[in-house]
Amino acid sequence: MPSLDKSLVADLPMFAGLGDDDVGAILKEAQSIRYPKGASVFQQDEDAHSFFVLLHGHLRVMKVTPDGQQVVVRFVTPGEIFGIAMAMGRTTYPASALAVVDSVALVWPSPAWPRLVAKHPSLAVNAIQTVGSRLQEAHTRVIEMSTEQVERRIAHALLRLAQQAGRKGEDGIQIDFPISRQDVAEMTGTTLHTVSRILSAWEDQGLVDSGRQRISIRNPHKLFLLAEPPAG
Amino acid sequence: MPSLDKSLVADLPMFAGLGDDDVGAILKEAQSIRYPKGASVFQQDEDAHSFFVLLHGHLRVMKVTPDGQQVVVRFVTPGEIFGIAMAMGRTTYPASALAVVDSVALVWPSPAWPRLVAKHPSLAVNAIQTVGSRLQEAHTRVIEMSTEQVERRIAHALLRLAQQAGRKGEDGIQIDFPISRQDVAEMTGTTLHTVSRILSAWEDQGLVDSGRQRISIRNPHKLFLLAEPPAG
Repeated sequence: MPSLDKSLVADLPMFAGLGDDDVGAILKEAQSIRYPKGASVFQQDEDAHSFFVLLHGHLRVMKVTPDGQQVVVRFVTPGEIFGIAMAMGRTTYPASALAVVDSVALVWPSPAWPRLVAKHPSLAVNAIQTVGSRLQEAHTRVIEMSTEQVERRIAHALLRLAQQAGRKGEDGIQIDFPISRQDVAEMTGTTLHTVSRILSAWEDQGLVDSGRQRISIRNPHKLFLLAEPPAG
Repeated sequence: MPSLDKSLVADLPMFAGLGDDDVGAILKEAQSIRYPKGASVFQQDEDAHSFFVLLHGHLRVMKVTPDGQQVVVRFVTPGEIFGIAMAMGRTTYPASALAVVDSVALVWPSPAWPRLVAKHPSLAVNAIQTVGSRLQEAHTRVIEMSTEQVERRIAHALLRLAQQAGRKGEDGIQIDFPISRQDVAEMTGTTLHTVSRILSAWEDQGLVDSGRQRISIRNPHKLFLLAEPPAG
């Protein structure tokens, strides 16, 4: 991969604790691939041929249930390792990944994983941390869905997106990739109708501002109070 | 740890790919600790001082929300590594673990983790697989809670428990540790009342049999059809 500046990727969490030479050797085995907006990176149940690091753009990871309902699992932001199904002991991808904007990823063939890890154990140590924080996030969602009203779940989902991919603008924090009300519905286990009703009410209160494929949080503090009402 | 027969633990998934000498060296740093029924192994938000492998018994892992609601995250079965908060980049335990029956665990001090992994990279490779399969499980729960009616969620939860900890008996598959209707409610994001109503109906249909802290699946095939109704 001679075309990529090593300094761009040496700071990624997956390379923490590795020396420059090690990072160079690992990068040498990767290809850099462009995924135009709307392109599929991999499909659910497809053979897990590769693992990836997102360099630029945003991906939506989604899963379809046996009876055809779709759920947004998460969004991948730059710097993240993803598609490590094989490292997790699977032979196929458990979900699909799709570029929501023009995106670029580093791509390694899956069989390189065990060999790279044997040579650079820090890779595995870093991957556990990544998978571990996704596990925490998934548990948080389970808990929210078990215990919270839909309004609080939507507030939590927007705050998480703002933290992951927020860009400060004139009118608050904008979520820095195209996101629809349907996406929010699939992230919070509710319907498009309910999301629309709640976002409209929040717009009237000056909390958020949303349009086609666009959400801004105008008053993060008030949204936080909705997500985490003070006890007592 | 001279009192423990190495052959008892050499087959554990966390030691896959390691030689006898390596396993011996890793075990030498562990203590074996007994947790009588009802004892706490660790508490949510407590300093993550140790990581563990369950040798015998069953643990309930649960999380309390800021407003005091409790959710069962999962049950730990023998052979599982748990409490690896530090490996996941945390300094505290994200949940509490409690012995639901008399249990025994191997216990390592958390600071041993990075050192053991540097020396035995297979440990990290195996831990990613464990954390990865928990992530799959958590996503499955998120998807069930997003898309399924409560009856299907309860059917799925019972089938998963039977797979994890089922013991074949005279009257079907018994879940091999004390489990209450409240536990099932906290695992499926519903109320005790709803679980009781559904389990009573299933008892009338000869699908399950349940008593105080005890659930048996009398007709796994029919329960499976409720969990995964044939398409079309």
